[in-house]
Amino acid sequence: DIRSVDPSLFLTNSAPSLLVADICAILFHANSFICHTWVQCLGFGYQFVSFVSTYFCLKCACKLIFPIPWSKVREHAILLNLGSLRAIAMRDRVLIFDYNCKGGKAFTDTLLPRLNNMNGGHCMPFELEVVEAALLSRIQHLEQRLMDLEPRVQALLEVLPNKLTGDILEQLRISKQTLVELGSRAGALRQMLLDLLEDPHEIRRISIMGRNCTLKRGNDDVECSVPLEKLIAEEEEEEIEMLLENYLQRCESCHGQAERLLDSAKEMEDSIAVNLSSRRLEVSRVELLLQVGTFCVSVGALVAGIFGMNLRSYLEEHVFAFWLTTAGIIVGAVVAFFLMYSYLKARKIL
Amino acid sequence: DIRSVDPSLFLTNSAPSLLVADICAILFHANSFICHTWVQCLGFGYQFVSFVSTYFCLKCACKLIFPIPWSKVREHAILLNLGSLRAIAMRDRVLIFDYNCKGGKAFTDTLLPRLNNMNGGHCMPFELEVVEAALLSRIQHLEQRLMDLEPRVQALLEVLPNKLTGDILEQLRISKQTLVELGSRAGALRQMLLDLLEDPHEIRRISIMGRNCTLKRGNDDVECSVPLEKLIAEEEEEEIEMLLENYLQRCESCHGQAERLLDSAKEMEDSIAVNLSSRRLEVSRVELLLQVGTFCVSVGALVAGIFGMNLRSYLEEHVFAFWLTTAGIIVGAVVAFFLMYSYLKARKIL
Amino acid sequence: DIRSVDPSLFLTNSAPSLLVADICAILFHANSFICHTWVQCLGFGYQFVSFVSTYFCLKCACKLIFPIPWSKVREHAILLNLGSLRAIAMRDRVLIFDYNCKGGKAFTDTLLPRLNNMNGGHCMPFELEVVEAALLSRIQHLEQRLMDLEPRVQALLEVLPNKLTGDILEQLRISKQTLVELGSRAGALRQMLLDLLEDPHEIRRISIMGRNCTLKRGNDDVECSVPLEKLIAEEEEEEIEMLLENYLQRCESCHGQAERLLDSAKEMEDSIAVNLSSRRLEVSRVELLLQVGTFCVSVGALVAGIFGMNLRSYLEEHVFAFWLTTAGIIVGAVVAFFLMYSYLKARKIL
Amino acid sequence: DIRSVDPSLFLTNSAPSLLVADICAILFHANSFICHTWVQCLGFGYQFVSFVSTYFCLKCACKLIFPIPWSKVREHAILLNLGSLRAIAMRDRVLIFDYNCKGGKAFTDTLLPRLNNMNGGHCMPFELEVVEAALLSRIQHLEQRLMDLEPRVQALLEVLPNKLTGDILEQLRISKQTLVELGSRAGALRQMLLDLLEDPHEIRRISIMGRNCTLKRGNDDVECSVPLEKLIAEEEEEEIEMLLENYLQRCESCHGQAERLLDSAKEMEDSIAVNLSSRRLEVSRVELLLQVGTFCVSVGALVAGIFGMNLRSYLEEHVFAFWLTTAGIIVGAVVAFFLMYSYLKARKIL
Amino acid sequence: DIRSVDPSLFLTNSAPSLLVADICAILFHANSFICHTWVQCLGFGYQFVSFVSTYFCLKCACKLIFPIPWSKVREHAILLNLGSLRAIAMRDRVLIFDYNCKGGKAFTDTLLPRLNNMNGGHCMPFELEVVEAALLSRIQHLEQRLMDLEPRVQALLEVLPNKLTGDILEQLRISKQTLVELGSRAGALRQMLLDLLEDPHEIRRISIMGRNCTLKRGNDDVECSVPLEKLIAEEEEEEIEMLLENYLQRCESCHGQAERLLDSAKEMEDSIAVNLSSRRLEVSRVELLLQVGTFCVSVGALVAGIFGMNLRSYLEEHVFAFWLTTAGIIVGAVVAFFLMYSYLKARKIL
Repeated sequence: DIRSVDPSLFLTNSAPSLLVADICAILFHANSFICHTWVQCLGFGYQFVSFVSTYFCLKCACKLIFPIPWSKVREHAILLNLGSLRAIAMRDRVLIFDYNCKGGKAFTDTLLPRLNNMNGGHCMPFELEVVEAALLSRIQHLEQRLMDLEPRVQALLEVLPNKLTGDILEQLRISKQTLVELGSRAGALRQMLLDLLEDPHEIRRISIMGRNCTLKRGNDDVECSVPLEKLIAEEEEEEIEMLLENYLQRCESCHGQAERLLDSAKEMEDSIAVNLSSRRLEVSRVELLLQVGTFCVSVGALVAGIFGMNLRSYLEEHVFAFWLTTAGIIVGAVVAFFLMYSYLKARKIL
Repeated sequence: DIRSVDPSLFLTNSAPSLLVADICAILFHANSFICHTWVQCLGFGYQFVSFVSTYFCLKCACKLIFPIPWSKVREHAILLNLGSLRAIAMRDRVLIFDYNCKGGKAFTDTLLPRLNNMNGGHCMPFELEVVEAALLSRIQHLEQRLMDLEPRVQALLEVLPNKLTGDILEQLRISKQTLVELGSRAGALRQMLLDLLEDPHEIRRISIMGRNCTLKRGNDDVECSVPLEKLIAEEEEEEIEMLLENYLQRCESCHGQAERLLDSAKEMEDSIAVNLSSRRLEVSRVELLLQVGTFCVSVGALVAGIFGMNLRSYLEEHVFAFWLTTAGIIVGAVVAFFLMYSYLKARKIL
Repeated sequence: DIRSVDPSLFLTNSAPSLLVADICAILFHANSFICHTWVQCLGFGYQFVSFVSTYFCLKCACKLIFPIPWSKVREHAILLNLGSLRAIAMRDRVLIFDYNCKGGKAFTDTLLPRLNNMNGGHCMPFELEVVEAALLSRIQHLEQRLMDLEPRVQALLEVLPNKLTGDILEQLRISKQTLVELGSRAGALRQMLLDLLEDPHEIRRISIMGRNCTLKRGNDDVECSVPLEKLIAEEEEEEIEMLLENYLQRCESCHGQAERLLDSAKEMEDSIAVNLSSRRLEVSRVELLLQVGTFCVSVGALVAGIFGMNLRSYLEEHVFAFWLTTAGIIVGAVVAFFLMYSYLKARKIL
Repeated sequence: DIRSVDPSLFLTNSAPSLLVADICAILFHANSFICHTWVQCLGFGYQFVSFVSTYFCLKCACKLIFPIPWSKVREHAILLNLGSLRAIAMRDRVLIFDYNCKGGKAFTDTLLPRLNNMNGGHCMPFELEVVEAALLSRIQHLEQRLMDLEPRVQALLEVLPNKLTGDILEQLRISKQTLVELGSRAGALRQMLLDLLEDPHEIRRISIMGRNCTLKRGNDDVECSVPLEKLIAEEEEEEIEMLLENYLQRCESCHGQAERLLDSAKEMEDSIAVNLSSRRLEVSRVELLLQVGTFCVSVGALVAGIFGMNLRSYLEEHVFAFWLTTAGIIVGAVVAFFLMYSYLKARKIL
Repeated sequence: DIRSVDPSLFLTNSAPSLLVADICAILFHANSFICHTWVQCLGFGYQFVSFVSTYFCLKCACKLIFPIPWSKVREHAILLNLGSLRAIAMRDRVLIFDYNCKGGKAFTDTLLPRLNNMNGGHCMPFELEVVEAALLSRIQHLEQRLMDLEPRVQALLEVLPNKLTGDILEQLRISKQTLVELGSRAGALRQMLLDLLEDPHEIRRISIMGRNCTLKRGNDDVECSVPLEKLIAEEEEEEIEMLLENYLQRCESCHGQAERLLDSAKEMEDSIAVNLSSRRLEVSRVELLLQVGTFCVSVGALVAGIFGMNLRSYLEEHVFAFWLTTAGIIVGAVVAFFLMYSYLKARKIL
């Protein structure tokens, strides 16, 4: 049964991709999978093969059984790998890997209503509905997260300069990390759509999927057994391009906004750093002023302490000695303070 | 009535766009709008449809009624989405969404005098007047804000290095945030104009709007029922290109200036950070010097305090004990201070 | 008289531009200028028109009089806008706006000797001499400022790490701001020259200026009434390209050098920041050491102070009480100091 | 013997490269190698020659012997230089330099099983197997290191804001350095693959390697003595392109992920810097508060010390003098503290 | 004599360039050089002319004598300007400016052995040998400096995090400045080679230098009087392209490595800054702790000082007054310390 494919078929960390490939029946059972043999007998496009083989070679051991000769079941398929959503769309079937994870669920939630509506005014072939639902579910996910994030970031940016608590700085940090992640995801998706749009060959292959048509080598012209099919394929090609351009635009919109918010947050952080630095300088200057004061007072205290020693200075009984000394200490401390203060002012340190 | 379209038709956060699409009568009433049905029966270009459908699916529920068969009212329209200005320009009508907001008002203020002047020496078709007024109102808005901002930023940059108060740093921060925003808006507008200019197909579609002409598939040649119309369409195409290039240039001018000012502000902030850092070092060094002094004085005070204890040291009655001790304390403190001072000088810390 | 054009004709903040346009007689008088009427009757290229109209609409009110029908005086002109130099070059005339400002003076100082030399071995048409003189005066101005700045920046970079005074940091800051400005100006000029070189249509229009030639629509071929003129125009076109390429190269040289110096200055500032940070850490550690010492001494002083209270502890008369207590205070302070010192050393704080 | 080539044939620091060149027998013996003579008689492509000659001229002296005339053994070869893996692949041989180092071992570990499997269902020529094994071993190495690094970086990013120990900062620093290195390696590999894919001439040269075919100058058409060979070469060309595109995609995936992680780490570091700065400000403010307190207390202590001098103030016997003075000291200190505190609060320093 | 050209012919600060130009005999004598006359009679390509004329107009006054009519000696020449190496290569001669400076010496050291070897197996024309020697000497210089720098930077990066002395930071700063300079030089050289490779016209002009060939205007086809020469010129053109591509690759290798090292150094500096910041926070916290302690102790000392005043508190004779007060002071100080400590711990400041 073709449904028995391992749900984590594609590599986890690879960039998003959308490929057309000939596939034959894929039957996986656990244990004793030898990659290279499989690569050579299947004859896939290299991309898919190396995705799968790398994965299995790295992560698990599987067995591959060919109950029927592969040349008989060969058919075109669209391989979708959009981050947390991985699927293979064929003419009348779609294989979803990890269908219980977030990406898979959002995809089925988007696809099923579309399929139900299709009965009435159907116009797009099934595999395109799948591709559109996949793109839509991913982009809506990005847009949704961005919409949730934006007001929070805006609120932070307004609140921040006045209220520099560690808690709010931590929120800014988390928002920034999320924006970096969102921006890089939207960027990867955008890059994939751009690559696809710049490659008319790949789009043409999608448009003739499931039809009795072939692509001539060299000039990529379509040749069909039924002339009508060629017309339909050409119209469909245009429709695919418009569809991709539309999602490309929404993707770029997401990407641009994430970048813009991240830029704002970064500028804010730079400004905060300068602000903190300037406030620390203020604090340091007042500290310095106090330290000047403390120094003068402690010199005075030293003098007082010296006169407080239990040693006989023969000044003990002098009238006014106390008052003269006291005045000397206080006047000395004040004069020393103002001398140092004006020196530091002159050197522009204080 | 076609005026009953919801005023917030387009997505709020999308990048600027200017599209041509076939539209039929759009009648919206509140409640019970089902997106996907609508998408399939209207047959719009995908872009518009997904704009609208995404919006309604996310934000509100509306009802769509088709009193007349859609094939009869289908006509070309230019969909404008320029930040806070959203409009649909048709051959003899223009729908402005949110016409009471800032962007909409600026647009009508720009458009109406142009239309009044048109009676005399009219040369451009109505929909181009609309497009030009829209672009002009947006760019003038950007230029106006930049012109307001620039002298303030220049004043800040001149005042700053000497006067590092929190208030002025806050003004610099706000100016930077505004410049980031202006730069990103001008950049988005520029990108839209660049995309449009690089796509001759789209410009040609604008030029034949409202004429009895069609575009041949493949080579994008214009075919008109009246040969004269073809000539006019070609001239108009050139005029549209010049118009777009002109606004592109003004947009790039804005963008470049915003970037330049932002760069200056950033460099200034970096320099301020280093300046503050160097001044904090200065303050710290003086603090260190004072702390060395305080330490020496407090050691002296400790000695004086010890001699001040109510314990009998049998030195009390010695002649000169007071003066010797006092001299010892003072000389010791001064010597210790200069020893530490020269050590720190030698290690280049002070 | 055509000289009565307002001297500040072009927008102040726009990017540099060099355009060819058909112009008719322009007569300005103060007051009651209505932009849109003028735009529509003159039939200029949009660029010039919107420059002028935007300016007048924003800054002043002028009157426009057409004493002669515009179709008779229509001729080609090159509109130059190079920062502080704004001029209109025609076949035998040049209008300089703001001819008393720096840019205008440098331009006339460059142009006049060239024109005097032309009588002998003249080879370039007048309008090209004007364009070359304009470009030359601007680029020489940039090169001159860069040459003045470079040795100062180099001297700063050599002096800086050893001598971190606020004065020198301020000089670095000013140099950086100047480099940002020079780099952005050279970049804008470079962009203009690049745009021009990538647009063969514009160059061809300059080359046929003042000749009896027209450009065929579509393939941009030159058609002249006299066949010889076509040859001359082609040679001139090549010459214009070489001229522009030459100034482009000098401009890129300027731009690259400004960027390189700015990069050096930025790296230097980053290094200084780290250097200051490390020196502040050094100072803080010595301060910490002193504070440990001060703490120990003040605990000792507290003990001494306690024994100095005028309260009877019944230890007053004990022999050796003074010496034991003194020894206890001193030993205690020293031991506490070394305990704390080794603890902080172990925690790698000191 | 051809195996006697010095194992470190290629330059150590050069960017990755993959070149096709005609080579004749290369026999190296130690001593007395004269580069330029060799360059001129071998007639290699310049690239290889200068690689080798630069290396020998810089690093060692070798001898080059030509036992057979070079024109007889000339054959095509693919020169591979992928960082730590350097090899020359010929039709039935592969020379691996430094085959004992990491890169060489990984390469042989990848190549040997492929060759063993080839006997059964062989489809790719030997030299392509070599190229694929080389690319695969390098990219798997990069992917492996990235997979090892990613969870550690993610763990750091989660742990960091709460636990800012020097140890964890050091781990972050090492991770960043590793990411910079991985990103630059993946980027260099990607650049090489991009350059190769954009150069159809080079790919065509690889595809006809070992066949009786030549490339016509000018249009790069293949001409073969046997028509079947031309077909096979064309199919192989397509296969090579797909192979390179596949590895390009994996390389870009690696590169993008390394950049993304590095960006996250950088943003984290910036946030940490602001966080530390804000916490230092907090600490400084409390220090300032304490210093205000210490200052007030030390002024009080000075007063107390003055009254503690062994000088007669004639206040000694006054009743309540003690209590009045004590109250004065305490009240004065507290009042001074609150005065200073409210002043600093008002100036927003505290 | 043609050798009497001023040695500093080219502008000092211009970007690297390599140009072909027709030159006639250049004879310079000191004094009374008039630039514009010279420009107009020589008929050079503009680039050379403006180089020379700008230089002379700025720096010195020279005399230009034409003993022979210029049309007779006109020949092609390659003008080389590679930073510190400036030369004019003709078919059988090469003029080196500043031949005693570093760049000039390295060039002659590279060229002379090549020319000596040429007698045996000569294959490249003289002017190409010159160009190759020039490029080689420049790139080897860059590679040599990079090879010297790399181990030092690597050593610094390993040593740094543990040993943050000012000396090592200074070394890092100097390495960074050198890397910025090397990177910008390699980048300028790379840009020049890229520009040359993208301009087939210029390469073709080099290939027909010294031959009886001309370039047809428009399609750049070569026309030679002898058909064999055309073949040789075509082969040489290919050889020039390969030569330039080779040096381009080495240049990119240099540039990439300089950038990579600079990136590593920058990341290291950022990490050091955070590290220092975190250590300063540690130091500040311990300082704060000590300041809390000092404050408590000084409050205790104030109490002790108050009781030490020579004023009668009528507590003097109370039994246990001393011990109670002492206990009160010590317990009070310890309790106050722990109260403040736990408060600061709770507020996460300490």
